[in-house]
Amino acid sequence: MSLRAPDPDLRAAARERLGALATPAGALGRLGDLAVWWAATSGELPPPDLAGPGEVRLVVLAGDHGVAAHGVSAYPAAVTPAMVRTVAAGRAAVNALAAAHQVSVRVLDVSVDVPPAPADGPLPAEVSSRKVCRGSGAIHLQDATTVEEAETALALGRELAREEVAAGGRLLLGGDLGIGNTTPAAALVAAALGLPATAVAGRGTGIDDAGLARKTEVVATALARTRGRHEDPLDLLVGLGSADLAATTGYLAEAARLGVPVLLDGLMSVACALLADRMAPGAAAWFAAGHRSTEPAQSLALDHLGLVPLLDLGLRLGEGSGAVAAVPLVRAAAALLRDTALLSEVLP
Amino acid sequence: MSLRAPDPDLRAAARERLGALATPAGALGRLGDLAVWWAATSGELPPPDLAGPGEVRLVVLAGDHGVAAHGVSAYPAAVTPAMVRTVAAGRAAVNALAAAHQVSVRVLDVSVDVPPAPADGPLPAEVSSRKVCRGSGAIHLQDATTVEEAETALALGRELAREEVAAGGRLLLGGDLGIGNTTPAAALVAAALGLPATAVAGRGTGIDDAGLARKTEVVATALARTRGRHEDPLDLLVGLGSADLAATTGYLAEAARLGVPVLLDGLMSVACALLADRMAPGAAAWFAAGHRSTEPAQSLALDHLGLVPLLDLGLRLGEGSGAVAAVPLVRAAAALLRDTALLSEVLP
Repeated sequence: MSLRAPDPDLRAAARERLGALATPAGALGRLGDLAVWWAATSGELPPPDLAGPGEVRLVVLAGDHGVAAHGVSAYPAAVTPAMVRTVAAGRAAVNALAAAHQVSVRVLDVSVDVPPAPADGPLPAEVSSRKVCRGSGAIHLQDATTVEEAETALALGRELAREEVAAGGRLLLGGDLGIGNTTPAAALVAAALGLPATAVAGRGTGIDDAGLARKTEVVATALARTRGRHEDPLDLLVGLGSADLAATTGYLAEAARLGVPVLLDGLMSVACALLADRMAPGAAAWFAAGHRSTEPAQSLALDHLGLVPLLDLGLRLGEGSGAVAAVPLVRAAAALLRDTALLSEVLP
Repeated sequence: MSLRAPDPDLRAAARERLGALATPAGALGRLGDLAVWWAATSGELPPPDLAGPGEVRLVVLAGDHGVAAHGVSAYPAAVTPAMVRTVAAGRAAVNALAAAHQVSVRVLDVSVDVPPAPADGPLPAEVSSRKVCRGSGAIHLQDATTVEEAETALALGRELAREEVAAGGRLLLGGDLGIGNTTPAAALVAAALGLPATAVAGRGTGIDDAGLARKTEVVATALARTRGRHEDPLDLLVGLGSADLAATTGYLAEAARLGVPVLLDGLMSVACALLADRMAPGAAAWFAAGHRSTEPAQSLALDHLGLVPLLDLGLRLGEGSGAVAAVPLVRAAAALLRDTALLSEVLP
């Protein structure tokens, strides 16, 4: 069943208002298109200014990936819990951006691989209370999750979307955190779009040529191992994804089902958007792309979804940072449509 | 005499701090480079957050151009005073953006072609009190200004930069307003870089193929008419520019001389930045590029200055809008360098 589309009448009215502003036709470029999308998806014309506290909300979903132990990442898996703590403490790069742009941040341990009693203490209770599993499988060797784990994670993501909307979210953002995460995300894009591993593998946080070759091999092996299971989104998440990516997919699909617009981040976010749109056809109409990451698979997935990213700054940080960095452009688009005089008011 | 360069020690310290943040090396992409530029040019590490009122200031300089009567623009020259009034009233698109991003806006009539007592009343006194002349010449037929007018306009621009800094400006923005303005600006870029008219002429506010052909011809004729006077910036402004572009050149050169960073806008801004850097060698180090406009001459001038624009949204509005739209990225860059934890604080 297809989702409800953003209001076509409101879209048309926003397009008409855009054309009547005291600016040359088309002069607002993609800010004008963004304004029309924001009006249609927010359900208001002029669209909301997003100035209220908590109206823009980022959820960062964290998980570990078995492939991290196989030379596909520039960093060891131990960095994942350290970064989860840092985001929870409000001290990661994404927190700095979010504070600058008035975006609320919530981080959840979906599938971080920490022992029950780690030497440096457990993760904060509010971060780990809804954990699905301890890490996801190395996808070239085994399935990422069981069907039950993937379904639990999908349901968790859907719940999170409902919670963020209930908390006042009018624009939702999704981010992912976890060493090794670009490998399953690239594999999902390859499988969903029928592309070879060489087309999707990127350098992630900065691997060298040998690392890139290992990563490509891991993705190729994973794709071959799961052949015949590349159609159904749940099969894809089980075979090639991870619990955190399943949760992100549920989060995005549910936001779209609720008719709440989403600003996507980098590769993990856009890979999950592909699956969400397959799971809930029409979901992509509720998504805008925050930025172009340096990962080739992200651009391939964006093209497939028909989304053009707002920023292209060579960011490859993850954590939702590219979506947060683009938030002021949504506010700018709203302001243009709301506050610019009409040509009829200006010319004698 | 070359200008003082942005503080090299501060630049090095900012680069070092960037590398020590709890992010993968290079993961902040061009936001990282912007943070380093902002620290070095602002003279502070961590760099200022630009949260105070009036710290980011836009000056929009308005003027008419004789070429507008020769079929090079999609709009008649009567639009110029109407838009000056609209900006002064706070109701233009750039005002909407500026309000959304806490940027102060000041508009000045440098050389608008309005009669002493127009039917719809004079322009506001505070806007026209420092007017240099009534319009600039059609550059394919005559010089744009006299030497005295260009010198007066340059001096006005320098004064404006000093006034904006005295008013608390820490980041200055320049914008231009005036029907026909992309024609002299494109001619200046062609002359300064030794390029043919065909390389620089663009569609401005949206001319058709016939209009573009006329515009190209006007630029080619103007370049031929002024042959031998393409070296000295003052000669260029007199022969091919305009009073408002001379004022913008003075504004940019003086900001750089004062060591105050500038975020450039579109074609007019970048064409004048070329001249300012020629007039005051080293000025370009104090400039960052807000956006890539749709005008080919702007990209050519940016390449020559070694500047990569922050945004690429197909904007072709003028008024300083592309610079204003990029302001949140400077704030984001400052926040990243200031508020992100160091890796040494995060990893055990």
